[in-house]
Amino acid sequence: MSDLSPTLKLAIDLISRPSVTPEDAGCQEVMIQRLEKLGFKVEKMPFGKVKNFYAKRGDSGPNLCFAGHTDVVPTGPESEWKVPPFQPEIIDGMLYGRGAADMKGSLAAMVTAVENFVQAHPNHPGQISFLITSDEEGPFVDGTTRVVDALMERNEKVDWCIVGEPSSTKQLGDIIKNGRRGSFSGDLTVYGKQGHVAYPHLAVNPIHLAAPALAEMANTHWDNGNDFFPPTSFQVSNIQAGTGATNVVPGTLKAQFNFRFSSELDFDALKERVLSILEQHQLEYHIDWTYNGLPFLTKPGELVDAMIKAIETNAGITPELSTSGGTSDGRFIAKMGAQVVELGPINATIHQINECVDANSLEQLSNVYSGILENLFVKTK
Amino acid sequence: MSDLSPTLKLAIDLISRPSVTPEDAGCQEVMIQRLEKLGFKVEKMPFGKVKNFYAKRGDSGPNLCFAGHTDVVPTGPESEWKVPPFQPEIIDGMLYGRGAADMKGSLAAMVTAVENFVQAHPNHPGQISFLITSDEEGPFVDGTTRVVDALMERNEKVDWCIVGEPSSTKQLGDIIKNGRRGSFSGDLTVYGKQGHVAYPHLAVNPIHLAAPALAEMANTHWDNGNDFFPPTSFQVSNIQAGTGATNVVPGTLKAQFNFRFSSELDFDALKERVLSILEQHQLEYHIDWTYNGLPFLTKPGELVDAMIKAIETNAGITPELSTSGGTSDGRFIAKMGAQVVELGPINATIHQINECVDANSLEQLSNVYSGILENLFVKTK
Repeated sequence: MSDLSPTLKLAIDLISRPSVTPEDAGCQEVMIQRLEKLGFKVEKMPFGKVKNFYAKRGDSGPNLCFAGHTDVVPTGPESEWKVPPFQPEIIDGMLYGRGAADMKGSLAAMVTAVENFVQAHPNHPGQISFLITSDEEGPFVDGTTRVVDALMERNEKVDWCIVGEPSSTKQLGDIIKNGRRGSFSGDLTVYGKQGHVAYPHLAVNPIHLAAPALAEMANTHWDNGNDFFPPTSFQVSNIQAGTGATNVVPGTLKAQFNFRFSSELDFDALKERVLSILEQHQLEYHIDWTYNGLPFLTKPGELVDAMIKAIETNAGITPELSTSGGTSDGRFIAKMGAQVVELGPINATIHQINECVDANSLEQLSNVYSGILENLFVKTK
Repeated sequence: MSDLSPTLKLAIDLISRPSVTPEDAGCQEVMIQRLEKLGFKVEKMPFGKVKNFYAKRGDSGPNLCFAGHTDVVPTGPESEWKVPPFQPEIIDGMLYGRGAADMKGSLAAMVTAVENFVQAHPNHPGQISFLITSDEEGPFVDGTTRVVDALMERNEKVDWCIVGEPSSTKQLGDIIKNGRRGSFSGDLTVYGKQGHVAYPHLAVNPIHLAAPALAEMANTHWDNGNDFFPPTSFQVSNIQAGTGATNVVPGTLKAQFNFRFSSELDFDALKERVLSILEQHQLEYHIDWTYNGLPFLTKPGELVDAMIKAIETNAGITPELSTSGGTSDGRFIAKMGAQVVELGPINATIHQINECVDANSLEQLSNVYSGILENLFVKTK
């Protein structure tokens, strides 16, 4: 390991810990020890089985928070991996292991970036913080959202937040995510009347009732999106009706659907339009709604500018802004009024067998992160 | 038991045997002994685990066949029954027990009817036969259909057939079923492309593809029926798609549907119209078809006339003809070119907890059956 960069060494240490969600497997302790050495004040904030911590250096001035998670998704069949998923190895320049890209590589880069920055600027202005959870890949109930609630309760302020999610697609830094669509789900039950297929006049088939309503929703143009968001998307993820017998008309149909929506719309507007379609088709129904998160958007400004410059300097490309893709913990931190942006390595292999990351890109990512600190705290002052 | 009618006594004996499909539990042996005493030539025709027999008296002339089954559907929770389901009892004039109405009461009435008729006309013209199975409530693979195939192979002819299915609705003999709709089923798979709901442009949602096609089929007017059949009916009985996760677009959708169709249509015509709707919606799909049975129809003629007269004489009402309701073994016997009609007791409680039949109606049914024999073989000659 002697010729490995400090970021790679730390990434390998973190990946070696089998922290399948919601486990942390000692990752946070490794980070905490490094941060305490730098003078960070660390608060452990466990909730239920989930480990979280918030750490901060500095007492006043704008607060730049590095956010991320130590938990990883399950490995899938280990026998299909090139290397055991928790015994990371570099093969042909790629570092293999579960969490290499999502997001232990980013965590390592954040720590070494801050180490380098603090060494160069021990009396830096402003505040640097870390908000780390082990519940991003799980139900995200006892993780970032609870920490954010606790911080907001005591009026802790975060001005800028960099989430280490793997945002890049082909080259490190080609994409930074400056927002995410909102997400909410409906759990729909359509009521009919069970009966025998031979006596259709005595039954009411909920599949027949629901099909045209679902067809209409699938075909609805909800909005045009805007400069930052693609058009709102509706998807039915699950549908089920039937007793299994081929001669029985079922009594109920269940369908689950999900919206990914732009900042042009909100929960209430979408809900009203769904209900109006169901009413128009004269369905008897029940819906349980799940609000997963409002859309958030960080418009170009001081944080985005600092990031673009740091990427141009350290990765040699100009990043594009994007709000596509799934939800992340960024949505919870956005509630604090912070500018939130996601920046991390290439996401091509995340959640897959043989997850990997370009080994050299991690040191480069560390340089980008410390470049952002320079741009925000030193060069612009 | 001394004051019970012969039909009731035999019905109670048969119901006491727990012949849950495909079991026969000795019922056929009881019938065979009675028929052999009358000079019937009995052939046992077991297939697989299913007991069947064909019995005949007479060597020439038209053949009237009594058809039925000794198997019954499961009892459901026995504790919910008024009486143990295989320990029949008469309460307030109703005979309770599994199979009382479907169709051990009819079997008893057929046997006593023939006993009475043969006693009065030991040298009756024509032939009287029984075709009895223990696989009508099950998969109907090794029952009537196999016996019919064997009989047809040796050119055995059946001219008239009375199936003892409980056809009556409010009063014994108010309905006789002179046909049944055809039935066939499709097992449809619609192919899409699995993906994440956050990246809808990379997925193809088979629920969204299938919904408008199913809506169109549910809304299609297939035919007008005719004088004997209600319009053809289409029902989706089962639908399933989804991984269970709310953030995954499923890769395939499965739906099962069933047609009950009139004699205006046939398999090929319906199949072609289904395929044309699927093509028009540009679906990628696969269908497995199951042909359950063609429609059959016995138009008013000598059998129906003889039945109407016997019901008028012995039950005091004029029956209506009907082709509604589910399939029965009548469809298999119709293949022999026979006139097939179903006539049995009131069907209000069949397949239910506390199945029961008016105790007096069984002797009346026996009189109707022997009246039909009189009308066909004696009075019209």
